[in-house]
Amino acid sequence: MAAGADEVAPSDTGPRLSDTDRLTAFSDGVFAIVITLLVIELRVPEYHEGELLAGLLDEGASYLAFLVSFVYVGVIWLNHHALVRLIRATTLALSWINLGILFGAVIIPFPTAVLASAFTHGNAADRRAAVALYALAAALMSAPWLVFFGYLRRHPTLLQSGIRPDYVRAQRLRPVTGLVLYGLSGLLGWFVDPLLGLIGIIVMISYHAVTSEGLPRWLTRR
Amino acid sequence: MAAGADEVAPSDTGPRLSDTDRLTAFSDGVFAIVITLLVIELRVPEYHEGELLAGLLDEGASYLAFLVSFVYVGVIWLNHHALVRLIRATTLALSWINLGILFGAVIIPFPTAVLASAFTHGNAADRRAAVALYALAAALMSAPWLVFFGYLRRHPTLLQSGIRPDYVRAQRLRPVTGLVLYGLSGLLGWFVDPLLGLIGIIVMISYHAVTSEGLPRWLTRR
Amino acid sequence: MAAGADEVAPSDTGPRLSDTDRLTAFSDGVFAIVITLLVIELRVPEYHEGELLAGLLDEGASYLAFLVSFVYVGVIWLNHHALVRLIRATTLALSWINLGILFGAVIIPFPTAVLASAFTHGNAADRRAAVALYALAAALMSAPWLVFFGYLRRHPTLLQSGIRPDYVRAQRLRPVTGLVLYGLSGLLGWFVDPLLGLIGIIVMISYHAVTSEGLPRWLTRR
Amino acid sequence: MAAGADEVAPSDTGPRLSDTDRLTAFSDGVFAIVITLLVIELRVPEYHEGELLAGLLDEGASYLAFLVSFVYVGVIWLNHHALVRLIRATTLALSWINLGILFGAVIIPFPTAVLASAFTHGNAADRRAAVALYALAAALMSAPWLVFFGYLRRHPTLLQSGIRPDYVRAQRLRPVTGLVLYGLSGLLGWFVDPLLGLIGIIVMISYHAVTSEGLPRWLTRR
Repeated sequence: MAAGADEVAPSDTGPRLSDTDRLTAFSDGVFAIVITLLVIELRVPEYHEGELLAGLLDEGASYLAFLVSFVYVGVIWLNHHALVRLIRATTLALSWINLGILFGAVIIPFPTAVLASAFTHGNAADRRAAVALYALAAALMSAPWLVFFGYLRRHPTLLQSGIRPDYVRAQRLRPVTGLVLYGLSGLLGWFVDPLLGLIGIIVMISYHAVTSEGLPRWLTRR
Repeated sequence: MAAGADEVAPSDTGPRLSDTDRLTAFSDGVFAIVITLLVIELRVPEYHEGELLAGLLDEGASYLAFLVSFVYVGVIWLNHHALVRLIRATTLALSWINLGILFGAVIIPFPTAVLASAFTHGNAADRRAAVALYALAAALMSAPWLVFFGYLRRHPTLLQSGIRPDYVRAQRLRPVTGLVLYGLSGLLGWFVDPLLGLIGIIVMISYHAVTSEGLPRWLTRR
Repeated sequence: MAAGADEVAPSDTGPRLSDTDRLTAFSDGVFAIVITLLVIELRVPEYHEGELLAGLLDEGASYLAFLVSFVYVGVIWLNHHALVRLIRATTLALSWINLGILFGAVIIPFPTAVLASAFTHGNAADRRAAVALYALAAALMSAPWLVFFGYLRRHPTLLQSGIRPDYVRAQRLRPVTGLVLYGLSGLLGWFVDPLLGLIGIIVMISYHAVTSEGLPRWLTRR
Repeated sequence: MAAGADEVAPSDTGPRLSDTDRLTAFSDGVFAIVITLLVIELRVPEYHEGELLAGLLDEGASYLAFLVSFVYVGVIWLNHHALVRLIRATTLALSWINLGILFGAVIIPFPTAVLASAFTHGNAADRRAAVALYALAAALMSAPWLVFFGYLRRHPTLLQSGIRPDYVRAQRLRPVTGLVLYGLSGLLGWFVDPLLGLIGIIVMISYHAVTSEGLPRWLTRR
């Protein structure tokens, strides 16, 4: 980073701008740590001599939870990657909104661990609670993304050259979908069946994986 | 980082200068790890079948402590961001002062955990001790920032072009405020009421959040 | 990273390209964390007064497991380093393949801990299971590398200038060797002798260490 | 990092060169994680209601161990910083030597924890063992630094322009001093008195802190 290049297009009228280097580095650090910390939850099972294999096979739920969390954080990282490519500079407000996005990523291991625990040791009531918690967390995680897109709409000068404002507006569809459908999955899991809610969650993660570079242009450019 | 650009304006008379790349990368790494490690403290509660939800609801204090710590580290990161923007190069002494700042960030999880524990399991005496410890830690954390600004005053050649020395002098007000008011919060918490002290701490974190890009120019430029 | 340089050679026909900065930063973060997290498994042994030395000497297997894991992650990092040097840009698909590679690195501490546990506390059956698990994990880890090279073959425009496509084709030999020989080590460990399987694994790690800059040119350029 | 700039001055005769970006990023990541992971050892003490303060005050040894470890990793980071400034490119061999240096940093938390435990719970024999272990680890950590300087002497083309080979030769004095004097501190601690050995260790850490930018030029340029 060349000294002097840090402040982008300083102006006395709007909010102070800075380039996105440290925001990107900090976010990537957080995502890398979250995705790696997940392995701490995989533990060698307690076992009697000769029963290690059986002990390992009993831990299927933990492995699945680890895999889902890993993919989820990967999806968020890729989505964040695409998000930062939209902007040419950041402001103090945008840095705080970004901290909100990171907050969502950082907590993932917790509802995942609750989910794994409920499906291993809990009964139907525990599973309902765990699926509802997970869905609630995922729905709330969508909120700062929505705020981010809204902020960009109100401050189009932050956009990278070549990004059209109506493209940004259309992208807001994705966190809105997240808020609504994760919320719905939670209600399904709580009132109908935890498994149905869980399937809803996995479908939503897949949706964000497939659209992580933004909704396709043919869909958003009419 | 282009080879050969690493040493900035080498001189035989003053301290050896180096650019701020690695200082920034190292600091961002530390902040990213601290803010993510906090989630380790959120654990699935022990529960009997069917009582997971009740167990989760009992952990309110841990969630609040997690949230406060997350915001606090975020605030320090943003303040550090603004701090590094003041300088165009670093010296060995400045690197050590920066390690002092990082030391303050790294320990945050400890007083926070003590606070959470005292407000969950402790009595009034424990809360007094926890609030006083937190305030003491926060007050001491302000010290290396003060040293940093003082060092910049004595070595104005390190300043980024366009940063006026009197701007730096005015910024010293913020860590001084921190030292005094965090200290006062601790005394309040110890001698009067732990809750009062806690409120003082939260007010101070908010103050540093709002002023993380430096005190406003209208206030510091008279 | 200069604003505007992020999107490399945009085209409307092929997949969207982005430069490799964040992929590299994210991967390095993950490798750095995995290699450092290993130390968490080294614990001060429980001991009675005066018996600390004896307690430390009893933990030989943990130290060895730590050393092997450290070298293994180091090998993967160096191999990944060489891999990224092959390409001039990444795509969404390549980012997902890279996440598969990182998945392999992230889980290493788990089979290693199982191995250490089996050789300290387990009997012959446990060791067989542990060696087979380790070999299975290592064999599966080779798969995303194979997919990576295959993707590069089908998308030669992603190659760094100066890298010949037949060089990439020849490099596929290494993950194929990994898949086959790690798998064979697992079968050896399971059906013949766990120690034999373990030796096979260590030989394979050494092979990947020596060839981490790619197979020598005299071997791949005929 | 500009695409195409990754391979520095490729040559068919010597070892393949690559620039130091990823080596630096990876190393900084490892140092940042080690220095931050230390806080995990600071735990809220078990306490009865009203005895939190007393419990905290009993943990003095842990705080001291944390502080020493923090400074030590900081010293190694600064020394590594200065080390990388000597070179303009890296090779596969140099990357492996660097992994040896990182290995030394990564294990620090372990002998430190042993030291803290021995001085809190152990008797004289335990302290002797702990000081000897710490000194042994510190002495061995010096070895890869020595190898690094030796490698640079044999490959002067790797040196940054402006770095004189005899300057590098003189710097070898520092790891040699480390090897000898940490070793001597261990012998002192084992055969004479653990406290004497400990003082020797702290003196050595201070020595490396003060000389982390290299031995002064007036001393090495005669």
